[in-house]
Amino acid sequence: MQPYSVFALSHSKQIAESVCHLLRKRQGQLFSTRFSDGEVYARFDESIRGETIVLMAQVDLPYTNLFELFITIDAARRASAKEIICVIPYLPHSRQERKDDARSSVSARLIADFIEHSGADRIITIDMHSTSIEGFYKIPIDHISMNNEFIRHIRTSLQPDNLCLCSPDFGGLKRIKQYKSVLNCEMSVIHKERLHPNQVSNMEIIGDVKGKDVVIIDDMIDTGGTLCKAADMLLQQGAQSVHAYCTHGVLSDDAISRIENSGIHKLIISDSIPRQYLGQNMEQISCAPMLASAIDHLMRNKSVKQFNQTHS
Amino acid sequence: MQPYSVFALSHSKQIAESVCHLLRKRQGQLFSTRFSDGEVYARFDESIRGETIVLMAQVDLPYTNLFELFITIDAARRASAKEIICVIPYLPHSRQERKDDARSSVSARLIADFIEHSGADRIITIDMHSTSIEGFYKIPIDHISMNNEFIRHIRTSLQPDNLCLCSPDFGGLKRIKQYKSVLNCEMSVIHKERLHPNQVSNMEIIGDVKGKDVVIIDDMIDTGGTLCKAADMLLQQGAQSVHAYCTHGVLSDDAISRIENSGIHKLIISDSIPRQYLGQNMEQISCAPMLASAIDHLMRNKSVKQFNQTHS
Amino acid sequence: MQPYSVFALSHSKQIAESVCHLLRKRQGQLFSTRFSDGEVYARFDESIRGETIVLMAQVDLPYTNLFELFITIDAARRASAKEIICVIPYLPHSRQERKDDARSSVSARLIADFIEHSGADRIITIDMHSTSIEGFYKIPIDHISMNNEFIRHIRTSLQPDNLCLCSPDFGGLKRIKQYKSVLNCEMSVIHKERLHPNQVSNMEIIGDVKGKDVVIIDDMIDTGGTLCKAADMLLQQGAQSVHAYCTHGVLSDDAISRIENSGIHKLIISDSIPRQYLGQNMEQISCAPMLASAIDHLMRNKSVKQFNQTHS
Amino acid sequence: MQPYSVFALSHSKQIAESVCHLLRKRQGQLFSTRFSDGEVYARFDESIRGETIVLMAQVDLPYTNLFELFITIDAARRASAKEIICVIPYLPHSRQERKDDARSSVSARLIADFIEHSGADRIITIDMHSTSIEGFYKIPIDHISMNNEFIRHIRTSLQPDNLCLCSPDFGGLKRIKQYKSVLNCEMSVIHKERLHPNQVSNMEIIGDVKGKDVVIIDDMIDTGGTLCKAADMLLQQGAQSVHAYCTHGVLSDDAISRIENSGIHKLIISDSIPRQYLGQNMEQISCAPMLASAIDHLMRNKSVKQFNQTHS
Amino acid sequence: MQPYSVFALSHSKQIAESVCHLLRKRQGQLFSTRFSDGEVYARFDESIRGETIVLMAQVDLPYTNLFELFITIDAARRASAKEIICVIPYLPHSRQERKDDARSSVSARLIADFIEHSGADRIITIDMHSTSIEGFYKIPIDHISMNNEFIRHIRTSLQPDNLCLCSPDFGGLKRIKQYKSVLNCEMSVIHKERLHPNQVSNMEIIGDVKGKDVVIIDDMIDTGGTLCKAADMLLQQGAQSVHAYCTHGVLSDDAISRIENSGIHKLIISDSIPRQYLGQNMEQISCAPMLASAIDHLMRNKSVKQFNQTHS
Amino acid sequence: MQPYSVFALSHSKQIAESVCHLLRKRQGQLFSTRFSDGEVYARFDESIRGETIVLMAQVDLPYTNLFELFITIDAARRASAKEIICVIPYLPHSRQERKDDARSSVSARLIADFIEHSGADRIITIDMHSTSIEGFYKIPIDHISMNNEFIRHIRTSLQPDNLCLCSPDFGGLKRIKQYKSVLNCEMSVIHKERLHPNQVSNMEIIGDVKGKDVVIIDDMIDTGGTLCKAADMLLQQGAQSVHAYCTHGVLSDDAISRIENSGIHKLIISDSIPRQYLGQNMEQISCAPMLASAIDHLMRNKSVKQFNQTHS
Repeated sequence: MQPYSVFALSHSKQIAESVCHLLRKRQGQLFSTRFSDGEVYARFDESIRGETIVLMAQVDLPYTNLFELFITIDAARRASAKEIICVIPYLPHSRQERKDDARSSVSARLIADFIEHSGADRIITIDMHSTSIEGFYKIPIDHISMNNEFIRHIRTSLQPDNLCLCSPDFGGLKRIKQYKSVLNCEMSVIHKERLHPNQVSNMEIIGDVKGKDVVIIDDMIDTGGTLCKAADMLLQQGAQSVHAYCTHGVLSDDAISRIENSGIHKLIISDSIPRQYLGQNMEQISCAPMLASAIDHLMRNKSVKQFNQTHS
Repeated sequence: MQPYSVFALSHSKQIAESVCHLLRKRQGQLFSTRFSDGEVYARFDESIRGETIVLMAQVDLPYTNLFELFITIDAARRASAKEIICVIPYLPHSRQERKDDARSSVSARLIADFIEHSGADRIITIDMHSTSIEGFYKIPIDHISMNNEFIRHIRTSLQPDNLCLCSPDFGGLKRIKQYKSVLNCEMSVIHKERLHPNQVSNMEIIGDVKGKDVVIIDDMIDTGGTLCKAADMLLQQGAQSVHAYCTHGVLSDDAISRIENSGIHKLIISDSIPRQYLGQNMEQISCAPMLASAIDHLMRNKSVKQFNQTHS
Repeated sequence: MQPYSVFALSHSKQIAESVCHLLRKRQGQLFSTRFSDGEVYARFDESIRGETIVLMAQVDLPYTNLFELFITIDAARRASAKEIICVIPYLPHSRQERKDDARSSVSARLIADFIEHSGADRIITIDMHSTSIEGFYKIPIDHISMNNEFIRHIRTSLQPDNLCLCSPDFGGLKRIKQYKSVLNCEMSVIHKERLHPNQVSNMEIIGDVKGKDVVIIDDMIDTGGTLCKAADMLLQQGAQSVHAYCTHGVLSDDAISRIENSGIHKLIISDSIPRQYLGQNMEQISCAPMLASAIDHLMRNKSVKQFNQTHS
Repeated sequence: MQPYSVFALSHSKQIAESVCHLLRKRQGQLFSTRFSDGEVYARFDESIRGETIVLMAQVDLPYTNLFELFITIDAARRASAKEIICVIPYLPHSRQERKDDARSSVSARLIADFIEHSGADRIITIDMHSTSIEGFYKIPIDHISMNNEFIRHIRTSLQPDNLCLCSPDFGGLKRIKQYKSVLNCEMSVIHKERLHPNQVSNMEIIGDVKGKDVVIIDDMIDTGGTLCKAADMLLQQGAQSVHAYCTHGVLSDDAISRIENSGIHKLIISDSIPRQYLGQNMEQISCAPMLASAIDHLMRNKSVKQFNQTHS
Repeated sequence: MQPYSVFALSHSKQIAESVCHLLRKRQGQLFSTRFSDGEVYARFDESIRGETIVLMAQVDLPYTNLFELFITIDAARRASAKEIICVIPYLPHSRQERKDDARSSVSARLIADFIEHSGADRIITIDMHSTSIEGFYKIPIDHISMNNEFIRHIRTSLQPDNLCLCSPDFGGLKRIKQYKSVLNCEMSVIHKERLHPNQVSNMEIIGDVKGKDVVIIDDMIDTGGTLCKAADMLLQQGAQSVHAYCTHGVLSDDAISRIENSGIHKLIISDSIPRQYLGQNMEQISCAPMLASAIDHLMRNKSVKQFNQTHS
Repeated sequence: MQPYSVFALSHSKQIAESVCHLLRKRQGQLFSTRFSDGEVYARFDESIRGETIVLMAQVDLPYTNLFELFITIDAARRASAKEIICVIPYLPHSRQERKDDARSSVSARLIADFIEHSGADRIITIDMHSTSIEGFYKIPIDHISMNNEFIRHIRTSLQPDNLCLCSPDFGGLKRIKQYKSVLNCEMSVIHKERLHPNQVSNMEIIGDVKGKDVVIIDDMIDTGGTLCKAADMLLQQGAQSVHAYCTHGVLSDDAISRIENSGIHKLIISDSIPRQYLGQNMEQISCAPMLASAIDHLMRNKSVKQFNQTHS
């Protein structure tokens, strides 16, 4: 195994702590601060010359976190790090990977360019919103999935023979099928028409959910509007319970209270985005064990393919 | 004159309005918004195909403004703009143009790279903190100065024969001399030792200020701590009054109340950074007329050298 | 309008002829050949110095066509063309815009890089398989659509009040809705599970097609296997007729005879990919008028947004 | 010695087999296929994370082979290979390394750019047509030569004291002299005027070949037209026999039958380009031993200079 | 015709004067100097904003001239020139366009990269030593030739029916044939073996020169050693006279006296490299008229192909 | 420690000898020459395949030295060096790191680009004139300082309690303070107005120097004009003696005699720039021990921060 050090951006100290604990590594000294005018500053307080460094980078908004990432990568490069591996569990702007309108930006590409340009050598990320984003990068991306963690949780919390998986849209069916191949249960899909971003309108359920414990799977939950509306409709159509598993808990606006006030029995998210407070019907599964394991494989030059595959 | 359109980022609509008014141009339709999770989005709502566009971009922190700039440039490029001219009166991270510590970043270079990489063809900026930042860019920079505006204001508000110009540090002496060559008056300099960023300690005045109307000139004012301390010391040493002219009014922390409570008679700043509220002893001179004039010269392919030179 | 010339790769002379005829332009002299060992060679036989050139480039496989494109762009750049606009109706490798397996390529990105690197300044293309491919390019892409041409054809060939639009997969629903908003009719979708590339297995129709004239819309038709199977199933479920509109007629393997032998009443494709021979139940709508019109708009610096929008 | 793996493009399995056998290595699992529409696809079926890989790449036309190379390099990079060494015995487009006509391409440079851009770290090639092509690349090129193999063969098949080396053109004299310095024999040169590519016109022999066993040396043989004509003329002028040694057997058109029907006693080529069938008066010397030896040196960080030098 | 200005590096003022006179243009104000430590400095003393500039750049060694070129291009770019056209009659390092030895540089490529990187948009050069150097550049090169000027001079100074053209090496035969096609006379070639750079050894003349007025044609003359030796041998073999036409008069070491003391009747060079002093048997033909004419064509977007073709 | 070899440019053999001696390394075989026309050529005469090489590069003017650096880096890259570390004690053009005038170059950036582009992986340099130059590079720079060597020398040659440090300008005060923090003595500064480069005019001393042993510290000495004038003024104002410590001894024009004829008691410079001859009141401290030590740290992947910090 090649030697390496783990460092964390200021917003990612907690997950770094977990990962380091699992890897039995000390967390490296990376100092970062914001000046009074808000500009971010970073400095490695120990030598990283010739070293492979793993940078834990939860860079959800505000953009200060993203800038701290760019600046820290630049500092690492200038401090002669041998290889800079960025662990970015949630990639911002992933939903802006195409021009929705004429004369708009493909901002997910810009993010990719900035990360590469700053000097990152490799990215580890979790459940990308769209896998075509990988094509925006020239550097290798190790893409890992919460699927197996979620499946393990489903198995321990729900009766397998009464399950009905549910995709919140057609795009999610591919993911649902991976779960189905392991859980061996029913599936359904919600057909909705999004007229404006973050807004929900008509909705229709395809598949029979009556009496079922419905499990909605998605890569992220933002305002929670669609999810709550879907849960209510599923319950109206006779579902016995509705659980939701979403990797990235963006939870913007008053998502938490909206979910607490909905019929959702439990929302399970990962800690890809750090959260101080969870709603009463919410639970968090840490992605730290999986990340630690993937990092360990990486450093041993072993394949990490298994972390992207769903297996029973 | 080549045809062009003027657009403004969401944070720069007001200065764009002034500039457009002076240029007798209509402001172009550039829509921008933040999604509920905070991600910024921009879209040109009119065709810019084959056009030269001038983008008014006040990108002081928070970083959302900077990201809106990157994304808008990207959108303009993808929408086939012929040339993208960014008017960025104040360049963030300008004070981080060198590594203050081992293993830190040269973040002003990163900003330069990101602006260039997004697709900007040219930048117009005002009173750069360090002119060596120009070397971080490959694209041309039109660097213009508030000097002549400030000199005009000094002449109308103070008695020329009782003036003493004062540089807040040795680095500013070059600027002071440009004023002196026109105003033909005394000068002094403050010698200070900055131990930590944004913190002030010992200070000493070189030059005789007794009975003088002292005019401090600087490119920016951040927390105002140094300036206020300098003003108090100047007054203690017998200065009749202390005025300060600073191009960029960053005014972070409680700078405004600190200045209001100091002995400074008047602080004059430009509107390079938009401000809703000014302190009672503060005054703003708009950089819009100068920007409008520079843009007009640019579009006529006339030299803009005069906007960088101090003249009487 | 800026002056420009139209040139065509060896495989695109026919569509260039149509486009030139519509634009009342002479086709420029571009000589290309293959040497005895198969290497391609290109040479402009008239001066293009300082000129904007439009390069008609149907670059469907074999790869010689693609290489002829690269080489011709390089020749144009070296011959001092002012701007090189490539009209590439069908972008090869568009279906390889993500890594389907671990350790494979994102070859659509490579194609993008090669086109850009050769020196193209802009691309005009039709009905991209995935719009996130636009993010693989830094140069502007003018994306135009056959939708309006197809809608016009549907209206003249079928009874509007008995129509049922059908998407061959969930990914195509967005396109179907654009048609629906104009044609104001029923819609359905086929749910299938693709186990291996180019192979079809289980399939299910969502929506009521009994007695309807079903119109399948897709961006491309390759082997035709899925389409034929879908048509048969639609007919089994009582559809009165099945028409299919697919922009890009790849028609690989024995697609033509397969379609002739299926229950499809008519397959309408464009000539984005040149075809010498069509099946008996196939019809071609030329994209030349739309391309000519878009080029004309481009050269007048007018918006081409309308060519991407579906309107009634 | 650093660890490494050897993989082969679909067209290069045989030479890879030989090389692996000599190096006592297993050939790595690289899957590649062509989809029904002809698009090429590649996937590494074993982990190459952190590994140095040697990619055997015979990329003679059709261009599918070249594309398979680009795509496989891209896949290797994205799969985190540490270093990608491409063994490209014959570089296509090597004869298009300058603009023969105004307004044509320098396509050998394009090939170089594409290989580099895909992510290759180093190239091993044999007997480049023009060594100035090395300047088209920024990555290192290990250039090795068949000279010593050919010299060994000449010595075993022909009487040294009756030899006369013959260069097919003036450009080849440098190569001939290298042979002469070792074989210590007579030399001659053919003066010809090529009016069109692949076409032969007037020809003249400089040097005395009467009664000699003439050995023509060239880097490649394409249609064989020139060679056959030269052989006939040499025989007319009294040569006792004519042998030809050409590294790259392009053998386009009906080169094989042309050579069989000529007066050439024996044509010796390498297997830099794989050939299923050889003419009756043709013989192949494998470059595999030399490649294997060069790879072995490379992996031990030993100089490979000797493989480019002619020695006795 | 687009407007443009002509500027000259400090070493090229004289040729610029001639070119400007012919083009009826004023020479632009470009100030350049060397500081006391030898560093070069350049500054445009008039606005070039938005202008096309033609930069006369005779950059033969010492390297200060080359550096002045890089720095002036950089200054022009930063001063917002629209297009920077460099007229570099003689490209240094052109003979180092391949690695003569293992582990050496391809320095002609470096020169190309530096010129491009500084910001040049186009190069005009004369009689490149090797046309494959064009492939080292991505920017367009307008390659013009002294051939027609030399042919005109030959015709006026020598009897056409007694001429024998002579190439100093096999590489030059292509050039000789261009002359022959127009002058319709005999030709010969010198076969030599260069053991060390700038050193001459054995030599042999192929062709009959007895009683002829021999005209040696070459792209450059450096130390003149080879040329003088060739002239002597030609005279020994009965040539009536020996004239030499070489575009680039590098004339290093004591070339001038060597030529004066040789049997050469006249050496004709161009002023591509500025020379204060010529030997007694030397004559200079200015390339200024041809350059002026080519620049004029360029600015009118007319083809410059004719300046590269030899015509009668 | 990783293995590495040390090579030297032709102008740096002496310092390389010292460094190699200290590191107990053999100096590698790097052949370089100038052809008769002045073009520089370099070749590694031993294999560097897969090796880390340290290239001693004193590249003060004339520019041939700089070009030799570029070409040697290129040769090293093409010869498959693993990592190329350039030790460039003195970076030319460092004083041209900003545009002093409109329409001039930022030539320090060009130098940076050329070094990077040639293929350098890292630079070691001494006492950069402006640390913002680090931002012109993307590759890491190890910046080391002569401060500790100079302090050691001051301590052994002068009485600590009678010292007065003196900065030749305000920009140098930061450096002076580092000395002061260790030497614990008085300080002063010279205020001058530079009207033209290399020319000196009015000058004023701030601080009390009467009876003191004044020590002027600067990063470089060029013509020595300013220094000599300063020394005279210091002596006029009662200084007991004047010593000067300047890292880079550019010593252009007749600097040496000017210094000999001035009141300066001793000028101490480093050998960052090789000098054959020193003036009578000049002394040289070699930077070789510090460079050797820094290289040793580098190769052991130990921090080199201490070489940049001033310590007692």
